[in-house]
Amino acid sequence: MRKGEATRQRIITEAAPIFNQRGFDGCSMQDLMQATGLEKGGLYRHFANKEELASEAFRFALAQNVKVRTEHLDEIPNSINKLKKVVQLFVDLPSAIPGGCPLMNTAIDADDGNEALRDLARKGIQDWRARLTRIIEAGIKANEIRRSTDPRRIANTLIATLEGALMISRLENSRNALRDAQTTLDTLLTSLERHS
Amino acid sequence: MRKGEATRQRIITEAAPIFNQRGFDGCSMQDLMQATGLEKGGLYRHFANKEELASEAFRFALAQNVKVRTEHLDEIPNSINKLKKVVQLFVDLPSAIPGGCPLMNTAIDADDGNEALRDLARKGIQDWRARLTRIIEAGIKANEIRRSTDPRRIANTLIATLEGALMISRLENSRNALRDAQTTLDTLLTSLERHS
Repeated sequence: MRKGEATRQRIITEAAPIFNQRGFDGCSMQDLMQATGLEKGGLYRHFANKEELASEAFRFALAQNVKVRTEHLDEIPNSINKLKKVVQLFVDLPSAIPGGCPLMNTAIDADDGNEALRDLARKGIQDWRARLTRIIEAGIKANEIRRSTDPRRIANTLIATLEGALMISRLENSRNALRDAQTTLDTLLTSLERHS
Repeated sequence: MRKGEATRQRIITEAAPIFNQRGFDGCSMQDLMQATGLEKGGLYRHFANKEELASEAFRFALAQNVKVRTEHLDEIPNSINKLKKVVQLFVDLPSAIPGGCPLMNTAIDADDGNEALRDLARKGIQDWRARLTRIIEAGIKANEIRRSTDPRRIANTLIATLEGALMISRLENSRNALRDAQTTLDTLLTSLERHS
């Protein structure tokens, strides 16, 4: 890695928690300079503007989360158990980057008009739903999940319930909402089992 | 109503959508002056600071939402039907104030440290859960809902799933996630029915 590329990557890594915690508008140049130890000129030698840095920071934060939440999933053969593991990993490891889920933070933060960040969050939700849908479809094909199951509905419900529960748990500084979501989603997933 | 009080209320009403859409940091003095047609001095004759105005705007936005989502609920005698109506009203009327749910917006926006707003959002979630819990407890007492039901878990699941689905629906500019949540929650609520 060239030195410039290494510095760029270090800035992204150090900026990611700041953007995730404070949002695009809430993250000041002062915050970024403090986190990276660089002056404004040093920062913007590597990024065209704040939006480009925020976009890279979001991509990094999301990739870290996807990584910790999908590791070893392939080792679980049964699709229902795999989905239960997805729920458990979300409940146990709510975010790899301080500040909660970058998807929800960016979705809420960018909904007044930062289109670049909004597109990235939209793509993040689409990709997550596609990963879950693939597991459900494979489960239907393998006769593990009832044929009447609507993969998109189950995928949307899993994402919505986990994200909403994370919001409540963070606000209340209590794991109750995440634990309650896990219990409900485990029951939902068990109800999808095909008994042949 | 004295003139000062009428002006104060008008400022709150006009500031509420701005804070709900842009968040505390994203809402500038310029935005507030434009929305209200008042100068800074005129605005701050009625509020000690931006935090007090934001707090009043949040209280107003939340009260409007609670109002439209709880109207006529008392006319529904059966507790399960009442809970299904709560879900339907949320799905059909996602927010009385532009910008989505003030609870979620404030929970995400304020989680880096605006304690006054954070406390208001926390109280808003607590009150919502308490309203749902009371309906569930009344349903258990009336032999409409199974005795084994955990009221807090069901209330947390309803709030989490609806809030998460609203986040996805707003991001994707599609009602799919909210409709999917409604289908799943209706099935969950039906499964709580006590068959005597």
